[in-house]
Amino acid sequence: MSRNIVPDIVVGRLPIYLRMLDFLVQEGRQITSSQELGDRLGISSAQIRKDLSHFGEFGKQGTGYNVAYLRDQLKRILHMNQEWNMVLIGAGDLGHAIAHYQGFAAHGFHIVGVFDNDPAKVGKALGKYVVQGMEDLQGVIEADKAAMGIIAVPAAAARQVADLLIGYGVRALLNYAPITLTTPHHVKVQYIDPVALLQHMAYYLPNGAGA
Amino acid sequence: MSRNIVPDIVVGRLPIYLRMLDFLVQEGRQITSSQELGDRLGISSAQIRKDLSHFGEFGKQGTGYNVAYLRDQLKRILHMNQEWNMVLIGAGDLGHAIAHYQGFAAHGFHIVGVFDNDPAKVGKALGKYVVQGMEDLQGVIEADKAAMGIIAVPAAAARQVADLLIGYGVRALLNYAPITLTTPHHVKVQYIDPVALLQHMAYYLPNGAGA
Repeated sequence: MSRNIVPDIVVGRLPIYLRMLDFLVQEGRQITSSQELGDRLGISSAQIRKDLSHFGEFGKQGTGYNVAYLRDQLKRILHMNQEWNMVLIGAGDLGHAIAHYQGFAAHGFHIVGVFDNDPAKVGKALGKYVVQGMEDLQGVIEADKAAMGIIAVPAAAARQVADLLIGYGVRALLNYAPITLTTPHHVKVQYIDPVALLQHMAYYLPNGAGA
Repeated sequence: MSRNIVPDIVVGRLPIYLRMLDFLVQEGRQITSSQELGDRLGISSAQIRKDLSHFGEFGKQGTGYNVAYLRDQLKRILHMNQEWNMVLIGAGDLGHAIAHYQGFAAHGFHIVGVFDNDPAKVGKALGKYVVQGMEDLQGVIEADKAAMGIIAVPAAAARQVADLLIGYGVRALLNYAPITLTTPHHVKVQYIDPVALLQHMAYYLPNGAGA
Protein backbone atom coordinates (compact mmCIF):
# COMPACT_ATOMS: atom_id res chain seq x y z
CA MET A 1 0.00 0.00 0.00
CA SER A 2 1.28 3.44 -0.88
CA ARG A 3 0.14 4.62 2.56
CA ASN A 4 3.15 2.93 4.08
CA ILE A 5 5.73 4.99 2.23
CA VAL A 6 4.81 8.27 3.91
CA PRO A 7 7.06 8.75 6.96
CA ASP A 8 5.08 8.41 10.17
CA ILE A 9 6.43 11.74 11.42
CA VAL A 10 4.82 13.42 8.40
CA VAL A 11 1.49 11.71 9.13
CA GLY A 12 1.76 12.99 12.68
CA ARG A 13 1.93 16.60 11.46
CA LEU A 14 -1.21 16.36 9.32
CA PRO A 15 -3.60 16.74 12.30
CA ILE A 16 -1.75 19.95 13.23
CA TYR A 17 -2.21 21.30 9.72
CA LEU A 18 -5.85 20.23 9.76
CA ARG A 19 -6.47 22.03 13.05
CA MET A 20 -4.99 25.24 11.70
CA LEU A 21 -7.04 24.97 8.49
CA ASP A 22 -10.21 24.40 10.55
CA PHE A 23 -9.35 27.58 12.43
CA LEU A 24 -8.81 29.53 9.21
CA VAL A 25 -12.13 28.26 7.81
CA GLN A 26 -13.85 29.48 10.98
CA GLU A 27 -12.16 32.84 10.51
CA GLY A 28 -13.71 32.98 7.05
CA ARG A 29 -10.40 32.78 5.23
CA GLN A 30 -10.41 31.43 1.68
CA ILE A 31 -6.74 31.34 0.67
CA THR A 32 -3.61 30.60 2.65
CA SER A 33 0.02 29.82 1.90
CA SER A 34 2.68 27.47 3.19
CA GLN A 35 4.40 30.61 4.47
CA GLU A 36 1.42 31.67 6.56
CA LEU A 37 0.78 28.14 7.85
CA GLY A 38 4.44 27.83 8.72
CA ASP A 39 4.54 31.16 10.55
CA ARG A 40 1.48 30.29 12.57
CA LEU A 41 2.68 26.79 13.42
CA GLY A 42 6.37 27.43 13.94
CA ILE A 43 7.26 25.08 11.08
CA SER A 44 9.21 26.05 7.96
CA SER A 45 7.15 26.64 4.83
CA ALA A 46 9.45 24.25 2.96
CA GLN A 47 8.62 21.52 5.46
CA ILE A 48 4.91 22.07 4.98
CA ARG A 49 5.16 21.97 1.19
CA LYS A 50 7.26 18.81 1.38
CA ASP A 51 4.85 17.13 3.80
CA LEU A 52 1.83 17.91 1.65
CA SER A 53 3.59 16.84 -1.55
CA HIS A 54 3.43 13.23 -0.32
CA PHE A 55 -0.31 13.32 -0.90
CA GLY A 56 -0.72 15.29 -4.12
CA GLU A 57 -0.79 18.81 -5.48
CA PHE A 58 -2.94 21.03 -3.32
CA GLY A 59 -1.91 24.51 -4.40
CA LYS A 60 -0.48 26.42 -7.30
CA GLN A 61 2.82 28.26 -7.16
CA GLY A 62 2.04 31.89 -6.40
CA THR A 63 -1.66 31.48 -5.65
CA GLY A 64 -1.47 29.49 -2.43
CA TYR A 65 -3.91 26.96 -1.07
CA ASN A 66 -7.69 27.03 -1.07
CA VAL A 67 -8.33 26.71 2.66
CA ALA A 68 -11.57 24.73 2.55
CA TYR A 69 -10.32 22.41 -0.20
CA LEU A 70 -7.06 21.62 1.57
CA ARG A 71 -8.95 21.12 4.83
CA ASP A 72 -11.30 18.66 3.14
CA GLN A 73 -8.44 16.80 1.50
CA LEU A 74 -6.59 16.41 4.81
CA LYS A 75 -9.80 15.19 6.45
CA ARG A 76 -10.15 12.59 3.71
CA ILE A 77 -6.49 11.52 4.00
CA LEU A 78 -6.82 11.14 7.78
CA HIS A 79 -10.10 9.20 7.38
CA MET A 80 -12.02 11.98 9.09
CA ASN A 81 -14.76 11.72 6.48
CA GLN A 82 -16.29 9.05 8.68
CA GLU A 83 -17.10 8.63 12.37
CA TRP A 84 -14.95 6.45 14.66
CA ASN A 85 -16.21 4.53 17.67
CA MET A 86 -14.00 4.00 20.72
CA VAL A 87 -14.18 2.20 24.04
CA LEU A 88 -12.72 3.72 27.19
CA ILE A 89 -11.18 1.40 29.79
CA GLY A 90 -10.74 2.88 33.26
CA ALA A 91 -13.33 4.87 35.21
CA GLY A 92 -11.03 6.60 37.70
CA ASP A 93 -10.18 10.33 37.84
CA LEU A 94 -8.55 10.20 34.45
CA GLY A 95 -11.37 8.18 32.90
CA HIS A 96 -13.80 10.77 34.22
CA ALA A 97 -11.94 13.62 32.57
CA ILE A 98 -11.70 11.70 29.29
CA ALA A 99 -15.40 10.75 29.32
CA HIS A 100 -16.30 14.41 29.87
CA TYR A 101 -14.01 15.76 27.16
CA GLN A 102 -16.12 17.42 24.46
CA GLY A 103 -13.37 17.50 21.86
CA PHE A 104 -13.66 13.87 20.80
CA ALA A 105 -17.21 13.92 19.49
CA ALA A 106 -16.63 17.32 17.88
CA HIS A 107 -14.03 15.61 15.68
CA GLY A 108 -15.99 12.45 14.93
CA PHE A 109 -14.59 10.22 17.71
CA HIS A 110 -17.29 8.68 19.85
CA ILE A 111 -16.86 6.86 23.13
CA VAL A 112 -19.45 4.07 22.95
CA GLY A 113 -18.76 2.52 26.34
CA VAL A 114 -16.80 3.00 29.57
CA PHE A 115 -15.44 -0.10 31.30
CA ASP A 116 -13.76 -0.90 34.59
CA ASN A 117 -12.95 -4.09 36.48
CA ASP A 118 -13.77 -2.55 39.87
CA PRO A 119 -17.16 -3.86 41.05
CA ALA A 120 -17.57 -0.66 43.08
CA LYS A 121 -17.54 1.38 39.86
CA VAL A 122 -19.55 -0.90 37.56
CA GLY A 123 -23.16 0.25 37.23
CA LYS A 124 -22.37 3.79 38.38
CA ALA A 125 -23.12 6.79 36.19
CA LEU A 126 -20.14 8.56 34.63
CA GLY A 127 -21.35 11.62 32.76
CA LYS A 128 -23.70 10.29 30.10
CA TYR A 129 -22.35 6.77 30.48
CA VAL A 130 -22.96 3.89 32.88
CA VAL A 131 -19.73 2.10 33.73
CA GLN A 132 -19.78 -1.49 32.45
CA GLY A 133 -17.87 -4.53 33.60
CA MET A 134 -15.09 -6.00 31.51
CA GLU A 135 -17.30 -8.98 30.63
CA ASP A 136 -19.35 -6.62 28.44
CA LEU A 137 -16.35 -5.26 26.54
CA GLN A 138 -16.27 -7.71 23.66
CA GLY A 139 -19.99 -7.37 22.96
CA VAL A 140 -19.82 -3.58 22.80
CA ILE A 141 -16.72 -3.56 20.59
CA GLU A 142 -18.37 -5.91 18.15
CA ALA A 143 -21.83 -4.33 18.18
CA ASP A 144 -20.50 -0.80 17.72
CA LYS A 145 -17.52 -1.73 15.54
CA ALA A 146 -15.22 0.12 17.90
CA ALA A 147 -11.85 0.22 16.14
CA MET A 148 -10.15 2.31 18.81
CA GLY A 149 -9.58 1.95 22.54
CA ILE A 150 -8.53 4.45 25.17
CA ILE A 151 -6.52 2.96 28.04
CA ALA A 152 -6.87 4.91 31.28
CA VAL A 153 -5.95 2.24 33.81
CA PRO A 154 -2.90 2.01 36.11
CA ALA A 155 0.37 0.98 34.49
CA ALA A 156 0.27 -2.45 36.09
CA ALA A 157 -3.00 -3.29 34.31
CA ALA A 158 -2.36 -1.62 30.95
CA ARG A 159 -0.68 -4.52 29.21
CA GLN A 160 -3.49 -6.91 30.05
CA VAL A 161 -6.12 -4.39 28.92
CA ALA A 162 -4.26 -3.79 25.68
CA ASP A 163 -4.11 -7.53 24.98
CA LEU A 164 -7.85 -7.83 25.63
CA LEU A 165 -8.68 -4.95 23.30
CA ILE A 166 -6.44 -6.30 20.56
CA GLY A 167 -7.96 -9.74 20.97
CA TYR A 168 -11.40 -8.24 20.46
CA GLY A 169 -10.33 -6.56 17.24
CA VAL A 170 -9.37 -3.04 18.29
CA ARG A 171 -6.76 -1.62 15.91
CA ALA A 172 -5.65 1.60 17.57
CA LEU A 173 -4.84 2.30 21.22
CA LEU A 174 -4.55 5.66 22.90
CA ASN A 175 -2.58 4.78 26.02
CA TYR A 176 -2.59 7.10 29.02
CA ALA A 177 -0.85 4.54 31.26
CA PRO A 178 2.85 5.31 31.75
CA ILE A 179 4.09 2.10 30.18
CA THR A 180 5.31 1.19 26.73
CA LEU A 181 3.11 -1.40 25.03
CA THR A 182 4.41 -3.84 22.48
CA THR A 183 1.69 -4.72 20.01
CA PRO A 184 1.29 -6.62 16.75
CA HIS A 185 2.34 -4.71 13.67
CA HIS A 186 -1.23 -4.05 12.54
CA VAL A 187 -2.13 -2.32 15.83
CA LYS A 188 -1.19 1.35 16.30
CA VAL A 189 -0.42 2.85 19.68
CA GLN A 190 -0.07 6.49 20.69
CA TYR A 191 0.94 7.62 24.14
CA ILE A 192 -0.17 10.44 26.37
CA ASP A 193 2.50 10.71 29.02
CA PRO A 194 2.74 14.15 30.62
CA VAL A 195 5.73 13.20 32.78
CA ALA A 196 7.75 12.14 29.74
CA LEU A 197 6.94 15.47 28.06
CA LEU A 198 7.95 17.43 31.16
CA GLN A 199 11.21 15.51 31.35
CA HIS A 200 11.80 16.20 27.67
CA MET A 201 11.50 19.94 28.35
CA ALA A 202 13.49 19.85 31.60
CA TYR A 203 16.47 18.71 29.53
CA TYR A 204 16.61 22.18 28.00
CA LEU A 205 16.16 24.16 31.21
CA PRO A 206 19.15 25.37 33.17
CA ASN A 207 19.89 23.07 36.09
CA GLY A 208 18.98 24.81 39.32
CA ALA A 209 16.02 26.66 37.79
CA GLY A 210 12.58 26.02 39.14
CA ALA A 211 13.17 24.34 42.45
CA MET B 1 26.24 24.60 24.29
CA SER B 2 26.79 20.98 23.37
CA ARG B 3 23.21 20.30 24.56
CA ASN B 4 21.93 21.84 21.37
CA ILE B 5 23.58 19.39 19.04
CA VAL B 6 21.57 16.39 20.21
CA PRO B 7 18.51 16.01 17.96
CA ASP B 8 15.32 16.84 19.81
CA ILE B 9 13.77 13.53 18.75
CA VAL B 10 16.58 11.73 20.59
CA VAL B 11 15.98 13.82 23.71
CA GLY B 12 12.32 12.88 23.49
CA ARG B 13 13.19 9.17 23.70
CA LEU B 14 15.30 9.50 26.85
CA PRO B 15 12.25 9.64 29.18
CA ILE B 16 11.04 6.37 27.63
CA TYR B 17 14.40 4.74 28.31
CA LEU B 18 14.41 6.17 31.82
CA ARG B 19 10.95 4.78 32.52
CA MET B 20 12.00 1.30 31.40
CA LEU B 21 15.19 1.46 33.49
CA ASP B 22 13.14 2.54 36.53
CA PHE B 23 10.98 -0.51 35.93
CA LEU B 24 13.99 -2.82 35.67
CA VAL B 25 15.46 -1.36 38.89
CA GLN B 26 12.17 -2.10 40.63
CA GLU B 27 12.34 -5.64 39.29
CA GLY B 28 15.73 -5.98 40.94
CA ARG B 29 17.62 -6.26 37.68
CA GLN B 30 21.28 -5.26 37.65
CA ILE B 31 22.35 -5.62 34.02
CA THR B 32 20.50 -5.01 30.77
CA SER B 33 21.38 -4.67 27.11
CA SER B 34 20.37 -2.48 24.20
CA GLN B 35 18.82 -5.63 22.77
CA GLU B 36 16.59 -6.19 25.79
CA LEU B 37 15.64 -2.52 26.04
CA GLY B 38 14.86 -2.47 22.35
CA ASP B 39 12.73 -5.60 22.52
CA ARG B 40 10.74 -4.24 25.43
CA LEU B 41 10.25 -0.82 23.87
CA GLY B 42 9.74 -1.76 20.25
CA ILE B 43 12.85 0.20 19.21
CA SER B 44 15.88 -1.26 17.45
CA SER B 45 18.90 -1.93 19.64
CA ALA B 46 21.03 0.03 17.17
CA GLN B 47 18.79 3.07 17.67
CA ILE B 48 19.15 2.84 21.42
CA ARG B 49 22.94 2.53 21.27
CA LYS B 50 23.11 5.49 18.87
CA ASP B 51 20.80 7.62 21.03
CA LEU B 52 22.83 6.93 24.17
CA SER B 53 26.13 7.51 22.40
CA HIS B 54 25.27 11.22 22.19
CA PHE B 55 25.78 11.43 25.92
CA GLY B 56 28.77 9.21 26.59
CA GLU B 57 29.81 5.60 27.03
CA PHE B 58 27.40 3.80 29.33
CA GLY B 59 28.14 0.16 28.69
CA LYS B 60 30.87 -2.16 27.51
CA GLN B 61 30.62 -4.29 24.42
CA GLY B 62 29.49 -7.71 25.53
CA THR B 63 28.72 -6.88 29.15
CA GLY B 64 25.71 -4.62 28.69
CA TYR B 65 24.56 -1.72 30.83
CA ASN B 66 24.50 -1.44 34.59
CA VAL B 67 20.79 -0.70 35.08
CA ALA B 68 21.04 1.59 38.13
CA TYR B 69 24.03 3.48 36.74
CA LEU B 70 22.41 4.12 33.37
CA ARG B 71 19.16 5.11 35.10
CA ASP B 72 21.05 7.61 37.27
CA GLN B 73 22.90 9.02 34.29
CA LEU B 74 19.68 9.54 32.33
CA LYS B 75 18.12 11.23 35.36
CA ARG B 76 21.10 13.58 35.52
CA ILE B 77 21.00 14.30 31.78
CA LEU B 78 17.24 15.08 31.97
CA HIS B 79 17.77 17.28 35.06
CA MET B 80 15.76 14.88 37.18
CA ASN B 81 18.36 15.14 39.97
CA GLN B 82 16.40 18.16 41.18
CA GLU B 83 12.76 19.02 41.85
CA TRP B 84 10.73 21.18 39.45
CA ASN B 85 7.91 23.49 40.43
CA MET B 86 4.96 24.11 38.11
CA VAL B 87 1.84 26.24 38.03
CA LEU B 88 -1.43 24.90 36.65
CA ILE B 89 -3.75 27.28 34.82
CA GLY B 90 -7.34 26.13 34.45
CA ALA B 91 -9.53 24.59 37.16
CA GLY B 92 -12.15 22.90 34.97
CA ASP B 93 -12.65 19.14 34.49
CA LEU B 94 -9.23 18.78 32.92
CA GLY B 95 -7.54 20.92 35.59
CA HIS B 96 -9.14 18.71 38.22
CA ALA B 97 -7.74 15.55 36.67
CA ILE B 98 -4.29 17.11 36.35
CA ALA B 99 -4.29 18.40 39.93
CA HIS B 100 -5.20 14.92 41.17
CA TYR B 101 -2.62 13.10 39.07
CA GLN B 102 -0.12 11.41 41.40
CA GLY B 103 2.49 10.81 38.74
CA PHE B 104 3.91 14.32 38.70
CA ALA B 105 5.15 14.48 42.28
CA ALA B 106 6.41 10.89 42.07
CA HIS B 107 8.81 12.12 39.38
CA GLY B 108 9.87 15.37 41.04
CA PHE B 109 7.34 17.70 39.36
CA HIS B 110 5.31 19.71 41.85
CA ILE B 111 2.23 21.79 41.17
CA VAL B 112 2.64 24.79 43.49
CA GLY B 113 -0.56 26.60 42.56
CA VAL B 114 -3.79 26.23 40.58
CA PHE B 115 -5.17 29.35 38.88
CA ASP B 116 -8.35 30.30 37.05
CA ASN B 117 -9.90 33.56 35.90
CA ASP B 118 -13.44 32.44 36.77
CA PRO B 119 -14.53 34.19 39.99
CA ALA B 120 -16.89 31.27 40.66
CA LYS B 121 -13.88 28.93 40.90
CA VAL B 122 -11.40 31.14 42.74
CA GLY B 123 -11.24 30.34 46.44
CA LYS B 124 -12.72 26.86 45.98
CA ALA B 125 -10.85 23.75 47.05
CA LEU B 126 -9.44 21.56 44.31
CA GLY B 127 -7.89 18.47 45.85
CA LYS B 128 -5.14 19.74 48.14
CA TYR B 129 -5.14 23.15 46.45
CA VAL B 130 -7.25 26.28 46.71
CA VAL B 131 -7.89 27.83 43.30
CA GLN B 132 -6.26 31.26 43.05
CA GLY B 133 -7.06 34.21 40.82
CA MET B 134 -4.80 35.19 37.95
CA GLU B 135 -3.64 38.25 39.90
CA ASP B 136 -1.73 35.91 42.22
CA LEU B 137 0.06 34.09 39.41
CA GLN B 138 3.18 36.23 39.16
CA GLY B 139 3.78 36.18 42.92
CA VAL B 140 3.56 32.39 43.11
CA ILE B 141 5.81 31.85 40.09
CA GLU B 142 8.45 34.11 41.57
CA ALA B 143 8.20 32.89 45.16
CA ASP B 144 8.31 29.22 44.19
CA LYS B 145 10.64 29.63 41.20
CA ALA B 146 8.14 27.80 39.02
CA ALA B 147 9.93 27.20 35.72
CA MET B 148 7.08 25.22 34.16
CA GLY B 149 3.43 25.87 33.46
CA ILE B 150 0.57 23.56 32.59
CA ILE B 151 -2.10 25.11 30.38
CA ALA B 152 -5.53 23.51 30.84
CA VAL B 153 -7.77 26.33 29.59
CA PRO B 154 -10.00 26.49 26.48
CA ALA B 155 -8.22 27.02 23.17
CA ALA B 156 -9.48 30.60 22.90
CA ALA B 157 -7.67 31.58 26.12
CA ALA B 158 -4.50 29.53 25.73
CA ARG B 159 -2.42 32.06 23.82
CA GLN B 160 -3.06 34.79 26.36
CA VAL B 161 -2.25 32.45 29.25
CA ALA B 162 0.96 31.35 27.53
CA ASP B 163 2.03 34.97 27.05
CA LEU B 164 1.36 35.71 30.72
CA LEU B 165 3.38 32.71 31.87
CA ILE B 166 6.27 33.55 29.60
CA GLY B 167 6.18 37.16 30.77
CA TYR B 168 6.48 35.96 34.34
CA GLY B 169 9.53 33.88 33.52
CA VAL B 170 8.16 30.40 32.87
CA ARG B 171 10.43 28.51 30.49
CA ALA B 172 8.47 25.37 29.65
CA LEU B 173 4.78 24.95 28.82
CA LEU B 174 2.78 21.74 28.81
CA ASN B 175 -0.20 22.73 26.69
CA TYR B 176 -3.44 20.72 26.85
CA ALA B 177 -5.38 23.30 24.81
CA PRO B 178 -5.89 22.22 21.18
CA ILE B 179 -3.99 25.13 19.68
CA THR B 180 -0.44 25.58 18.46
CA LEU B 181 1.47 28.19 20.45
CA THR B 182 4.28 30.24 18.99
CA THR B 183 6.78 31.14 21.68
CA PRO B 184 10.22 32.73 21.98
CA HIS B 185 13.10 30.43 21.20
CA HIS B 186 14.11 30.03 24.84
CA VAL B 187 10.65 28.72 25.80
CA LYS B 188 9.82 25.06 25.22
CA VAL B 189 6.31 23.82 24.50
CA GLN B 190 4.96 20.28 24.49
CA TYR B 191 1.43 19.39 23.49
CA ILE B 192 -1.08 16.92 24.82
CA ASP B 193 -3.69 16.65 22.11
CA PRO B 194 -5.60 13.36 22.15
CA VAL B 195 -7.62 14.22 19.02
CA ALA B 196 -4.46 14.77 16.99
CA LEU B 197 -3.13 11.39 18.17
CA LEU B 198 -6.40 9.65 17.28
CA GLN B 199 -6.34 11.26 13.83
CA HIS B 200 -2.74 10.15 13.40
CA MET B 201 -3.79 6.55 14.06
CA ALA B 202 -6.98 6.75 11.99
CA TYR B 203 -4.76 7.39 8.97
CA TYR B 204 -3.58 3.78 9.20
CA LEU B 205 -6.96 2.17 9.76
CA PRO B 206 -8.99 0.86 6.85
CA ASN B 207 -11.66 3.33 5.83
CA GLY B 208 -15.03 2.01 6.83
CA ALA B 209 -13.74 0.33 10.00
CA GLY B 210 -15.09 1.44 13.32
CA ALA B 211 -18.22 3.35 12.48
